[in-house]
Amino acid sequence: LDGDTTVVQSSTVSVEGTAAATETVRAQNAAFVDAPVSGTVGPAEDGTLTVLAGGKSEEIDAVEPILEAVGDPVVRCGEAGHGTRMKLFVNLLLGDMMGAFAEALTFGAAQGLELDAMRQVVEAGAVDSPLFRAKGENIADGDFAPRFPVDLQFKDLRYANEAANDAGVTLPQTAAARESFSAASAMGHGEEDMAAVLKYFESVAGLTVGE
Amino acid sequence: LDGDTTVVQSSTVSVEGTAAATETVRAQNAAFVDAPVSGTVGPAEDGTLTVLAGGKSEEIDAVEPILEAVGDPVVRCGEAGHGTRMKLFVNLLLGDMMGAFAEALTFGAAQGLELDAMRQVVEAGAVDSPLFRAKGENIADGDFAPRFPVDLQFKDLRYANEAANDAGVTLPQTAAARESFSAASAMGHGEEDMAAVLKYFESVAGLTVGE
Amino acid sequence: LDGDTTVVQSSTVSVEGTAAATETVRAQNAAFVDAPVSGTVGPAEDGTLTVLAGGKSEEIDAVEPILEAVGDPVVRCGEAGHGTRMKLFVNLLLGDMMGAFAEALTFGAAQGLELDAMRQVVEAGAVDSPLFRAKGENIADGDFAPRFPVDLQFKDLRYANEAANDAGVTLPQTAAARESFSAASAMGHGEEDMAAVLKYFESVAGLTVGE
Amino acid sequence: LDGDTTVVQSSTVSVEGTAAATETVRAQNAAFVDAPVSGTVGPAEDGTLTVLAGGKSEEIDAVEPILEAVGDPVVRCGEAGHGTRMKLFVNLLLGDMMGAFAEALTFGAAQGLELDAMRQVVEAGAVDSPLFRAKGENIADGDFAPRFPVDLQFKDLRYANEAANDAGVTLPQTAAARESFSAASAMGHGEEDMAAVLKYFESVAGLTVGE
Repeated sequence: LDGDTTVVQSSTVSVEGTAAATETVRAQNAAFVDAPVSGTVGPAEDGTLTVLAGGKSEEIDAVEPILEAVGDPVVRCGEAGHGTRMKLFVNLLLGDMMGAFAEALTFGAAQGLELDAMRQVVEAGAVDSPLFRAKGENIADGDFAPRFPVDLQFKDLRYANEAANDAGVTLPQTAAARESFSAASAMGHGEEDMAAVLKYFESVAGLTVGE
Repeated sequence: LDGDTTVVQSSTVSVEGTAAATETVRAQNAAFVDAPVSGTVGPAEDGTLTVLAGGKSEEIDAVEPILEAVGDPVVRCGEAGHGTRMKLFVNLLLGDMMGAFAEALTFGAAQGLELDAMRQVVEAGAVDSPLFRAKGENIADGDFAPRFPVDLQFKDLRYANEAANDAGVTLPQTAAARESFSAASAMGHGEEDMAAVLKYFESVAGLTVGE
Repeated sequence: LDGDTTVVQSSTVSVEGTAAATETVRAQNAAFVDAPVSGTVGPAEDGTLTVLAGGKSEEIDAVEPILEAVGDPVVRCGEAGHGTRMKLFVNLLLGDMMGAFAEALTFGAAQGLELDAMRQVVEAGAVDSPLFRAKGENIADGDFAPRFPVDLQFKDLRYANEAANDAGVTLPQTAAARESFSAASAMGHGEEDMAAVLKYFESVAGLTVGE
Repeated sequence: LDGDTTVVQSSTVSVEGTAAATETVRAQNAAFVDAPVSGTVGPAEDGTLTVLAGGKSEEIDAVEPILEAVGDPVVRCGEAGHGTRMKLFVNLLLGDMMGAFAEALTFGAAQGLELDAMRQVVEAGAVDSPLFRAKGENIADGDFAPRFPVDLQFKDLRYANEAANDAGVTLPQTAAARESFSAASAMGHGEEDMAAVLKYFESVAGLTVGE
């Protein structure tokens, strides 16, 4: 490593791990950019992963062509380490939304609503999202093959909750989502897609959404 | 009321109220369709409210032109009363998402992330939704004028939670969201837009998102 | 009813029901005292039920001998209706404690701790309580015969949560307990003793406390 | 260290730390007993701390006189490391109970109940506990001098929640309590006694219990 080198860290590690890596790299006069990506299989194939770049502005400039080859858009999140923090932010929101969708679908099914009708209403309104479209279709198909498995989403909710506890941010809903993913994992669904958090709620309610 | 009449109930009332109205109307040989709408000011102006229609198929047929004048799409939710149930379903999801967004933004701000960057990442990914776009912009503008106020969202979360309790569906995350809206209301934000649930989290964390 | 009569309401009804009864009785110049009791089978047999008396001081005086025959102590809770409110207060605490005990025991069992040792530690410390002694023994015996069933505790948590929502008091832990009792009821344990909320946690964790 | 030595670890460290210490000590043929204590200032002065002993039976025998000098009772919790696990178990329950008491008192105060009456009812019933007696008195006195501060209780709830997440035990109520202690700490009460979690609930509700 020397002053002509920029180290790009694109794997997702902890905030502490990123800080340590930054320090090590900079001690050798090299530049450090953390650039985890957000998105899973579909976006990766389409080149539409979001790159979460953290680092000094000129250091990100230096590697921007590489980052743009990885995904689009490249979002500048702040200093080195802020890419990793942004990843926690968005995965916290992802986990909360998946948990909320699972609760809502179980609620609706118990009220006698058809899955197709629920999906149609969701997709027509303010709550429409690529997540609910994809997971709604998977659930309708009974397809829980892991794009992003329960156990990884669970892990990210734990990291985010810990970081929030360190920072004085109360997160009651995220804490509840975390416990639901914990339950889904404990009941044997840890390696299935995150949408399988639904199976925990179905098991308690004694019903299956979409049947 | 007689056999040539169809009563269309488009206001949002309780599931029990709708059941009582259905019975009363049918006792006089008239037809009953419940058709609450989902969506607020923007969609109403654009004619893109979602109409949640419940009733016998031929009875909905009879009033479909009227419903189509109110909004688009008209989603058939099942029997009379299922429009009302669908409204609870979607507003439960709406409240959970708003609460989750508020937690995530407060978390991100405490991590040193800029609101603009967080919004950009949200809008580029699986969690993108009209809700987060609209509320993200409102929060950036400090605009909490009520489209759908905290107290109405709080009320819907209470109704949904009660209905879930009656139906044997456990909803820990929704219950947590409900308590957050309760807190926001207690702290004086009940008449502001539902996005003001954020102010409860900001108050605890001692920060303001976007500043 | 006339000015020489005092109506004593000792059943547990809602706060609203008590208010209506008070008004009706007073309209006829009779006195009204609400006096629900706290405690179940054991205390009832021992004469150690707690009487939660609400009413004007002189009106409670007039019926105190009767109340003292029902239980001991007779606690003066305030105006008419405050006996009922006190009952909600103490049953909220009861439900939260039972839920917490169930979580703690499941946690301990998963950590490899014996039920006997856990009970011994609880009974030696600050958390010792008649509730944990009685329920700890019942759980050790596999005895879930209903002293106070899951469904009644669940109902009281719902009432208390609703009253708190009306009053601007946020109750995240109580809301979580409520959802756990909901789950236990949904899984078929509604008519068993409130200690059977444990079975919900055991079911998720895949273990049985005390085995 | 040699075969005649028994190392007694009485400070509270993590489960992992205890496991590492056990291995190190045993590698030198010495014996290891973990023996954290449960209880705070009062019990320490009275000699009634509970000693939570983990280790091989004969190894605990060898140091029992020492443990009995520290506290009474000495509870045998299982193998080395189980003393530490038992400490997490009982402090989880302690935190949940304190959080529940704070919610209940805030609820009661909002219902117009006097603190004295609430304490009297608690102390007469199944929920009576040394914890509620001591903290009830402290709250009545406005005395939040730290016996066991908010931040330490918060830390223990985090450890317990993490251990539960590792073990597949869902803990929604404990997770909610953890977030309440987080909020109390964030609002500036971290160094006050754990009873100051009450101040978070009071702040949201806009009232002060006991006034």
